[in-house]
Amino acid sequence: METGRPGGKAGEVKGIRRAGIWELALRVAALGLTLVAAVVLRTDDQNTTFVLQVSPVLPRLNIPVTAKWHYLSSFLYFVVANAVACAYAALSLLLLLILRRGGGKAADMVTALITISDVMMVALLFSSCGATTAVGILGREGNSHVKWGKVCNVFGRFCHRVSIALSLSFIGSFGFFLLAALAVVGLHRRP
Amino acid sequence: METGRPGGKAGEVKGIRRAGIWELALRVAALGLTLVAAVVLRTDDQNTTFVLQVSPVLPRLNIPVTAKWHYLSSFLYFVVANAVACAYAALSLLLLLILRRGGGKAADMVTALITISDVMMVALLFSSCGATTAVGILGREGNSHVKWGKVCNVFGRFCHRVSIALSLSFIGSFGFFLLAALAVVGLHRRP
Repeated sequence: METGRPGGKAGEVKGIRRAGIWELALRVAALGLTLVAAVVLRTDDQNTTFVLQVSPVLPRLNIPVTAKWHYLSSFLYFVVANAVACAYAALSLLLLLILRRGGGKAADMVTALITISDVMMVALLFSSCGATTAVGILGREGNSHVKWGKVCNVFGRFCHRVSIALSLSFIGSFGFFLLAALAVVGLHRRP
Repeated sequence: METGRPGGKAGEVKGIRRAGIWELALRVAALGLTLVAAVVLRTDDQNTTFVLQVSPVLPRLNIPVTAKWHYLSSFLYFVVANAVACAYAALSLLLLLILRRGGGKAADMVTALITISDVMMVALLFSSCGATTAVGILGREGNSHVKWGKVCNVFGRFCHRVSIALSLSFIGSFGFFLLAALAVVGLHRRP
């Protein structure tokens, strides 16, 4: 992503450098956010007891229950998607740092490929965020129409960590969106 | 999105025209697919009877049950997302057809805005497809860990229409991804 502002050769070079720093910062942020999101959900589990009272005259029953991150396929997909996005962010950073020293047609082609891959990451991360949000809402509120009870009243800490991972991943996804958008603006501004 | 292939002025103009036709065709396809996906899910409901047999010595109970598209928030989000993408596809088509006659800096800015909006549609549609797929999997297979029973064995026709809408929307989302990718390639190839 190279942006050149109008206003002479010096201003243009300054603009390109500024854009380069912004791009690198955004990529590092996206890498960190998707990495932490994947780790937070990958290490999420909770052992607790569910208190069941069948009748007021009978004693309460304490049933041990467990929540694990891989119990729901959406959470598994979320971890894989964030891990893939994180690995890609690292690879794209490496490629861009090498490209900064070089140039020419090959470098131009790699930059185009990176921009398209950024859009792919937007699709991958937003789909995993959508899936996890859908399951998260069901876990928190349940659905009476299909008789799916809420579970977050029992697994409060587990659900809280899911929402943290979700927020981090959503900001990371927005980072990839910004990278793609800035690349398009930069290409349009190119002299 | 304007792509110019190397090989003289005539070849370049031919390339631009070809790219223009491909872009318009992709936009029309994305418009149609998201429209049909939204309509298919928006009109999806099923009234059926659930056969309950408490004991082999007792007669079977036929319980009337209903499935409606708005019972799950993910389906509501899916319909809204596809309707927004469809309206945007129509607006972008209109803008591009006007731009084809004009030109200059304003046209260039609108083209950049359209490409960024295409990426936004990728994010919107993929998130809604992710949410609907997550709920669809739960409906078809259930989840024993959280005691959510499957419902597609009762609402077979309803679930079948959800998967049709999902497939159509997924192809539409891929259309917006292709539009963004082709725009990036076109901008990099620009002389």
